[in-house]
Amino acid sequence: MLIRELSREDSLEFLAGQRFARLGCAWKGQPYIMPIRIARESDHLFCFSTVGRKIEWMRKNPLVCVEVDEIESLQAWCSVVAFGRFTELPKTPDFDKERHRAHALLWPDEEVWEPGYARTIVHGKAHVLEAVYFKIELDKVSGRRATPSS
Amino acid sequence: MLIRELSREDSLEFLAGQRFARLGCAWKGQPYIMPIRIARESDHLFCFSTVGRKIEWMRKNPLVCVEVDEIESLQAWCSVVAFGRFTELPKTPDFDKERHRAHALLWPDEEVWEPGYARTIVHGKAHVLEAVYFKIELDKVSGRRATPSS
Repeated sequence: MLIRELSREDSLEFLAGQRFARLGCAWKGQPYIMPIRIARESDHLFCFSTVGRKIEWMRKNPLVCVEVDEIESLQAWCSVVAFGRFTELPKTPDFDKERHRAHALLWPDEEVWEPGYARTIVHGKAHVLEAVYFKIELDKVSGRRATPSS
Repeated sequence: MLIRELSREDSLEFLAGQRFARLGCAWKGQPYIMPIRIARESDHLFCFSTVGRKIEWMRKNPLVCVEVDEIESLQAWCSVVAFGRFTELPKTPDFDKERHRAHALLWPDEEVWEPGYARTIVHGKAHVLEAVYFKIELDKVSGRRATPSS
């Protein structure tokens, strides 16, 4: 197997082609990962999530990590990892423009998305989920692509 | 969309069915995620990785997070997240048995795997990669499965 580093430009391009990523945050030394919808625009990502542990942790510690990958086999894969910083886009007039931009990029096909109606059944109880838009300013971005040895 | 919580047992079963996961570690508040090969055995995972930032960070802070998912669409996905603790299986007689167990579970099909020969091309220089086996003791394990609203 041969592993090659991707340039920042190639890494960002790979990231731009992905609709889902894994987002990592950390609090008191404990990392936490969750799958998340992403849309890249220049040097930042727009994201959307229901409120929960991850949002609480990122409000306290905005340092995050984003990972995307395509794994065909042990010998053929591509993975991009980015360090970044969480910025919430709250429901206030100051953030209206960015929140609408996030919405437009995250749901370009106007897919059916029902955050207001999404329900989580936890211990038999239904909860309506509160949703939050946020942005991740990308800092260091790196990638690796593995190919089988010839 | 309806999201249901999985029991620990169902979450562990989903985890057992996956060969790749995303492993998160953290150092000084900065989370880091990488894709990784896994093999589950009861309440722990065996893993294998080349030495690099992730191994250095986990040696300093053994708290980790493991995430696996299957994403069909926005409305249909399953994700399992586990908190755990990193334990290295060094190349010493004390750990021979566990290291061999890890090897047998990680490569059950005796696939071609050439860690000794794997090379990384970084800035035009080839490096031979050093490999490490380790174990993750699973603590809290939780999962969620989303299905489209009927």
